[in-house]
Amino acid sequence: MPARTHRRTWLFASLAALALAAVSAAASAQTAPPPTHKVVLQVSDNDAQKWNLALNNARNLQDDLGAEATELEIVVYGPGIGMLKSDSPVAKRIADALKAGVQVVACENTMRNQKLTRADMLAGIAYVPAGVVELMKKQQQGYAYIRP
Amino acid sequence: MPARTHRRTWLFASLAALALAAVSAAASAQTAPPPTHKVVLQVSDNDAQKWNLALNNARNLQDDLGAEATELEIVVYGPGIGMLKSDSPVAKRIADALKAGVQVVACENTMRNQKLTRADMLAGIAYVPAGVVELMKKQQQGYAYIRP
Amino acid sequence: MPARTHRRTWLFASLAALALAAVSAAASAQTAPPPTHKVVLQVSDNDAQKWNLALNNARNLQDDLGAEATELEIVVYGPGIGMLKSDSPVAKRIADALKAGVQVVACENTMRNQKLTRADMLAGIAYVPAGVVELMKKQQQGYAYIRP
Repeated sequence: MPARTHRRTWLFASLAALALAAVSAAASAQTAPPPTHKVVLQVSDNDAQKWNLALNNARNLQDDLGAEATELEIVVYGPGIGMLKSDSPVAKRIADALKAGVQVVACENTMRNQKLTRADMLAGIAYVPAGVVELMKKQQQGYAYIRP
Repeated sequence: MPARTHRRTWLFASLAALALAAVSAAASAQTAPPPTHKVVLQVSDNDAQKWNLALNNARNLQDDLGAEATELEIVVYGPGIGMLKSDSPVAKRIADALKAGVQVVACENTMRNQKLTRADMLAGIAYVPAGVVELMKKQQQGYAYIRP
Repeated sequence: MPARTHRRTWLFASLAALALAAVSAAASAQTAPPPTHKVVLQVSDNDAQKWNLALNNARNLQDDLGAEATELEIVVYGPGIGMLKSDSPVAKRIADALKAGVQVVACENTMRNQKLTRADMLAGIAYVPAGVVELMKKQQQGYAYIRP
């Protein structure tokens, strides 16, 4: 075999290896585990036991997985909205959850229907136009969905 | 460098670019956002407040995201089946949801257990052999799952 | 065109075809349907009707999809834990579900809070440190989530 053919063969092999490496890199980038655990918790019942259960769930997720490695959001809407009103029986636990890095959001559609303004709600929480849209978007972003 | 080598180098470069473009196209086709928002809503409680909440959720999703951009399905089964019977207290709202393009399906397993036939049900709804299988399939197809 | 150029063109074409085949194989491996249907069912209510509904759901999934093709897990936690205690009203049905290949797991966080030990629980069930973490992990592994 002349040297030219040897060189050409080597070049083909290199190029094939490069192409396969590129394919493989693209594949592994797509299947790699996400850097954090992401969970969205739904509260839509007018039931203080459910509110406590959701807060227990959030705490257990952080305890088991580490608060830094976990992105947690509690979405409160519909009949559940009382959980986030100033006179909520779980006000103290919401404050603790916020301090621990849990995102807590209230649905503004629900607030409008129930004639609530931000002045009626707990400090430190966030707001979304529609709780149900937020729940959909979070799932689209790879969040696991849990309804306690 | 002789012309032949130049031509060969140019060919290698072109082929490498082609291969990388193909890899990149395949990768972006897989990670591109879906053309529509897809949500499946579950109703399995014998509770008219839950039925209204599910219908509010469907309307809010359409209002926020646009009815054309949203594929919505409400799966009704088990103790929730009364939502879709002819004498349902939310019959008028179901008709409105169907007109707005929401898919509403009843579980035939549940109907058989409760001795219901299609003659007992609201007009315009669809049927699936098993509500729970439908909920699984929709999630496999990329639908977000919401249980009001 | 000299023979050498012909051969080189043929080699380029083969290599391009190989690269595209590799891309295509990688792409289809990622989008192929999973070999089994995977569903995780949540039980977190203290309500025997919900327990029966979850067990009906599991049976319907197996009947429709085939027990071999279906990986089913029922995660029981919080106020639902009574479903898996020795005196459970659905003890017989749990035994049947286990025999049919359904995985049934109890949350050890909940058991600790309610001063329950494994001696208080039904035979044959499995245990997880935290039910809510299990629900998240299963979804990360591609399980559909259903909360009856």
